[in-house]
Amino acid sequence: MKGYEEILKALMEMAYEQESLRKKQEPELKIPLGISNRHLHLSQKDLDCLFGSGYSLTPIKDLSQPGQYACKETVTICGPKGSIEKVRVLGPVRPQTQVELLGGDHFKLGVKAPVRMSGDLAGTPGITLVGPKGTVVIQEGVIVAQRHIHMTPKDAEYFQVQDGDIVELEFEGERAGSYRNVIVRVTDASALECHLDIEEANAMNLTSLSLIKIIN
Amino acid sequence: MKGYEEILKALMEMAYEQESLRKKQEPELKIPLGISNRHLHLSQKDLDCLFGSGYSLTPIKDLSQPGQYACKETVTICGPKGSIEKVRVLGPVRPQTQVELLGGDHFKLGVKAPVRMSGDLAGTPGITLVGPKGTVVIQEGVIVAQRHIHMTPKDAEYFQVQDGDIVELEFEGERAGSYRNVIVRVTDASALECHLDIEEANAMNLTSLSLIKIIN
Repeated sequence: MKGYEEILKALMEMAYEQESLRKKQEPELKIPLGISNRHLHLSQKDLDCLFGSGYSLTPIKDLSQPGQYACKETVTICGPKGSIEKVRVLGPVRPQTQVELLGGDHFKLGVKAPVRMSGDLAGTPGITLVGPKGTVVIQEGVIVAQRHIHMTPKDAEYFQVQDGDIVELEFEGERAGSYRNVIVRVTDASALECHLDIEEANAMNLTSLSLIKIIN
Repeated sequence: MKGYEEILKALMEMAYEQESLRKKQEPELKIPLGISNRHLHLSQKDLDCLFGSGYSLTPIKDLSQPGQYACKETVTICGPKGSIEKVRVLGPVRPQTQVELLGGDHFKLGVKAPVRMSGDLAGTPGITLVGPKGTVVIQEGVIVAQRHIHMTPKDAEYFQVQDGDIVELEFEGERAGSYRNVIVRVTDASALECHLDIEEANAMNLTSLSLIKIIN
């Protein structure tokens, strides 16, 4: 009997060790959450108008997506019903100015922004931007950001998704639920991160420490 | 053949008419949506401290739940990190003061409120309330409201749910998804209405005209 027990114990240890090794080699990828407040991206032309000719943005904090940063600069956003002060500019400058609002800003500003992916600005409303050196009236570029996940081709392989795929996210806890229509964005220069805005995060009781799960 | 065709046509018309009649007799019940901003309910004692001895609330708008109303009165809510002005008082007075915040207010006030049903206040944090005639420091009573649906026993029979049941709501559209952990509240004095806060409504692109669907 002693012999059997020893063999059994040795086999169980081997199985346990093998499982541990496998887990170390393939750790489960969790998706970090980036929570966005309202913000805007500026073209160099609009930056010049708002902050002065030839102005350069002042980075104060790197964002998780490589090369993207929050800036010292803020502007006032004005709609027909009201305005919102100190809206943060994100850098670097882009070909076209883009204002990303929260759903609730509709009521403060009197501007109803459609849900769009970044850069998809055709037919979106305009708004007035006021900076320390001038005012810019943009004719389009106001959106509410569509939920999305940034990832590299390697992450996409892991999650078995492709650029442009629409996935669903599931959340546990007191404010459990799911978000559908979440678009996958795959580029070599991405860092794995799910982007929701603060209203979406609060509605599901999520924080910047929450880890996100794709369910289909 | 003419005879058969006529009989078939007559039968089809009868079937169609019967279906129309049935639909008219049992129209599908949709659940209206009530969207709450942060607000508070006051005890008479706390009302006296904030607005003066023997003060009576001034109703300005009936709410959908019978006997409930929004008041002219507002207070300032102060936490260790900041304050929020002009928070609406809802009437009538209640046995215990209750402050219902939005998830995002945590960061403004420095008070982290748990998700609770109205009245379930044991162990919740306190906060400071400032009115025109005085200040009240409540020791407990600050919550984020749990998603819930008010209905009558007749509605509950229609939806095949009971008081206290937990259901899931599903939403279509650009910001589609679902909310779980939605509690059903059945009383004779209810009006059929689903209560979400403005962050939950915005996260799913809902408005006060949205109609809500229970999926289980």
